Amino acid sequence: MSELNANLIHRVNVGDSLTRTAARHPERTAVVDGDRRWTYAEFNAWVNRVANALSERGYARGDALALASGNSAEFLVTYYACAKLGVVCVPINLGWRTDEIAYVLDHSEARGIVVESQLAAAMADALGRVPAVRDVFVAPGTGAEVALDRPVSTFDALAGGEGEPEHVVEDRDPITYLYTSGTTSFPKGVVGNHTAIYLESMTMALEARFTEDDRFVAMLPMFHTAQLNCHCTSAIMVGATIHVRRAFDASDLLALIERERITQIFALPMMYRAMLEHPDVDRRDLSSLRRACYAMAPMPDAQLRQCLEKFGCDFYLLFGQTEMSPTATVFRPEHQLSHCGAVGTPVVNVQVGIMAPDGTLVPQGQKGEIVYRGPHTMTEYLKDAEATGKAFAHGWFHSGDAGYFDRDGVLWFTDRNKDVIKTGGENVASIEVEKAVYAADEDVAEVVVVGLPHERWSEAITAIVVPRNGGSIDGEALIAKVKELIDPYKAPKAVIVVDELPKTSTGKIQKHKVRHSYADHYARTREER
Amino acid sequence: MSELNANLIHRVNVGDSLTRTAARHPERTAVVDGDRRWTYAEFNAWVNRVANALSERGYARGDALALASGNSAEFLVTYYACAKLGVVCVPINLGWRTDEIAYVLDHSEARGIVVESQLAAAMADALGRVPAVRDVFVAPGTGAEVALDRPVSTFDALAGGEGEPEHVVEDRDPITYLYTSGTTSFPKGVVGNHTAIYLESMTMALEARFTEDDRFVAMLPMFHTAQLNCHCTSAIMVGATIHVRRAFDASDLLALIERERITQIFALPMMYRAMLEHPDVDRRDLSSLRRACYAMAPMPDAQLRQCLEKFGCDFYLLFGQTEMSPTATVFRPEHQLSHCGAVGTPVVNVQVGIMAPDGTLVPQGQKGEIVYRGPHTMTEYLKDAEATGKAFAHGWFHSGDAGYFDRDGVLWFTDRNKDVIKTGGENVASIEVEKAVYAADEDVAEVVVVGLPHERWSEAITAIVVPRNGGSIDGEALIAKVKELIDPYKAPKAVIVVDELPKTSTGKIQKHKVRHSYADHYARTREER
Repeated sequence: MSELNANLIHRVNVGDSLTRTAARHPERTAVVDGDRRWTYAEFNAWVNRVANALSERGYARGDALALASGNSAEFLVTYYACAKLGVVCVPINLGWRTDEIAYVLDHSEARGIVVESQLAAAMADALGRVPAVRDVFVAPGTGAEVALDRPVSTFDALAGGEGEPEHVVEDRDPITYLYTSGTTSFPKGVVGNHTAIYLESMTMALEARFTEDDRFVAMLPMFHTAQLNCHCTSAIMVGATIHVRRAFDASDLLALIERERITQIFALPMMYRAMLEHPDVDRRDLSSLRRACYAMAPMPDAQLRQCLEKFGCDFYLLFGQTEMSPTATVFRPEHQLSHCGAVGTPVVNVQVGIMAPDGTLVPQGQKGEIVYRGPHTMTEYLKDAEATGKAFAHGWFHSGDAGYFDRDGVLWFTDRNKDVIKTGGENVASIEVEKAVYAADEDVAEVVVVGLPHERWSEAITAIVVPRNGGSIDGEALIAKVKELIDPYKAPKAVIVVDELPKTSTGKIQKHKVRHSYADHYARTREER
Repeated sequence: MSELNANLIHRVNVGDSLTRTAARHPERTAVVDGDRRWTYAEFNAWVNRVANALSERGYARGDALALASGNSAEFLVTYYACAKLGVVCVPINLGWRTDEIAYVLDHSEARGIVVESQLAAAMADALGRVPAVRDVFVAPGTGAEVALDRPVSTFDALAGGEGEPEHVVEDRDPITYLYTSGTTSFPKGVVGNHTAIYLESMTMALEARFTEDDRFVAMLPMFHTAQLNCHCTSAIMVGATIHVRRAFDASDLLALIERERITQIFALPMMYRAMLEHPDVDRRDLSSLRRACYAMAPMPDAQLRQCLEKFGCDFYLLFGQTEMSPTATVFRPEHQLSHCGAVGTPVVNVQVGIMAPDGTLVPQGQKGEIVYRGPHTMTEYLKDAEATGKAFAHGWFHSGDAGYFDRDGVLWFTDRNKDVIKTGGENVASIEVEKAVYAADEDVAEVVVVGLPHERWSEAITAIVVPRNGGSIDGEALIAKVKELIDPYKAPKAVIVVDELPKTSTGKIQKHKVRHSYADHYARTREER
């Protein structure tokens, strides 16, 4: 018996879930992107053409292929083509600057990159620093031709045969390296594997009752795990339809829901607010909606009640992180109004514990670090055994978040252990922002950067600054300068000038006290307006 | 980072699904067996005590533990305790005779056996032949004490600590050896693995919409994959309640549905018939039923219509085989009346193809062998590389069944390639019955044994016999004699005496012609009564 024969029969492969759906539901609509529509049979055939063409060009199991694209059918095609070959897809976060892009291209050892045409110019500098990226495939878009220092071919030229590519890919082979900001300035490469993503897709389908009759909108960035694996891979697994949107626009989305009879949406709390405040919300027929999902932070009670009334469907929150692929808990419709502010209960494939610093689990009601076990968990941090070992200490994955279970078994998130701010769906390392603030203004004697509650951003990046003796700080100018130094989305939304920062007896800044003192900063600012 | 730490975080383990459910739903009822009830917290603690006690006695990853028990809580506890340790559970089919039991104990290299007390006497002879089975654990039951030739301890004495047993168990480690009749006289050991059983459980939960509010009845034999993995493991995965029944009894089941507000049942077509014909069917409140499942053969149209009317819930058919863990297709409620007699459409984790003898897949509408791919598929036949290689030829699992897809993509089963008869939920090799018929009566010149359509047995084992010149055959006496030679359930239900059998030009008996000629044998017999 050949290894390949047995592998093709047994394996857990995210690409195979598309193959199977195409066999079960060949005529159903898989993907709609603008004026372009594909049935599952057509979409799978396209994926196969791309996979077979990549294979002909030498791409094989374990190779990495970077992907710089906004949401598009080509994004999904690239992801599934990689999956079928055992090639690792490395999505580029479109908020990154040249330094980070170059770091990721180099660190992941990408041998090629798929670039949407309008992003080619932005990638050129990073590519210039990483000559090991041999192939550039330019996907259709709105961009003009860009001269690069190496041969370029078009994505459309990736057109091999339509037969199923049949190569050995093992259950736990990597499928993605998703780079995520940690507490250090360069992102860590989260190694996702086929079994993890496959089971997360089944978790979502089971927990949120996805069926082949569902119609989804994919408008959050596909380069994030939440959009890619909570809704896209699970939709494809069950045979639902994905409407691709490049970005959120309240008017467009409300019209789309009505026109395409959308059943499931996935948006950030601030997007629901924008829709609630849009005049079209009362004009559009939203009765097709069955479930509305939001991530990764709770929605204010008043807004949730408004949403339930206006949208007339179930709402649920997903909570987790890239390392969990990402879902760990679901804040379920039945808990939303009775446990407002909580983050939910564990999903079927994840066990959640609360751990004391000594590695023992603490009982219900007690606070500690939120830790996870389950087959969704990442394989490791790429080339970072130390960080992986730390994250996996005591046989649990350490989330870096603090929380507790209440008497009903519902999880509450209370604090973040790691210095990472979750803002508008992005992770930002506070230390990176702090370094930029110091570099931006020499009158800064001391700064601490924290995330403060904000109804649009979930957490708004905020710098609390102590000026040098005799110095003065111009907040707006400081923010503008920081935007020149680091990715603009990482810049503080506000600068608060103070005389001193709370500290421990050993001189360590007490971030939790800072966060507590200024917790209502943005609420007050809003009222004052 | 230790191997154990990473394994505990990542692994796919059927035992972990119980651990997680116990964490999510500690107070929900897991199992009800007679007067005994356990919450998930209690049931998981019991499983842990048994697992830890087995571990203390030296049971470790890869060891085999046989299990001879009717349906009971202890059956499920043993199965889950094995899963958590990586020990392989080897259920004994209670229809087997001493020869087969001894063969399986020896072939599986079982180092111990759990025996329900009333079965100890029946196991004694087989155990006598296999001294390598060192430990006998007698589970509570109605049996008297039996003297065995080795030390015996009670199942209740398996009481270690309640902490989670933490041992390395890999995703694809074997979880069960399920012996199934093939075309040869000794059964083949189907090696099931954790990933396969885990994914099958998720398939069932997703396809049949299981939730933690469901209440199941487990009355089909748990030593078969269908009861164990379609309904028990998937019920435990989602946190539903399992009501254990030792056997089917129409009156008892109808009362149970009313009393416990049962939502899901799983029975053979003949059991639904018995309930339909029982006077209590009109007296009991059956309104709690949501879904009724039947396997493995279609239900006659008239009976299905009666069922839909009387039970007032959705009906669906599961089709597959032990090697697929077992579900491959579901005949869905929406297809039942429009495609009566079909076996359904593929489940989310299985791809179904129709293959020509040369290994190529044939188009929709054409007949061929039904073949499967998907992560549910067994690992292999234990110690039988030749049979495994044959079953996995061309990169698909060969079902041995013939069929085709109709224009709606619905699968029809037309014939069996392998000489296996599926009768009352059991597989029987026709060659074994043929040998017994020859041995039973020397007046038999030629016999062919086939399964013919039967409303109770799905297929009734039937012997078509040509008598020796001048000889005569007494059907009833022949059947009685066969029952002395092989397991009684394998004996023919009827003997048909003929002058000659249809043959090919090379002298091979044309079984399909025999089956066709006598297809209405039992329908006629019924009418004549």
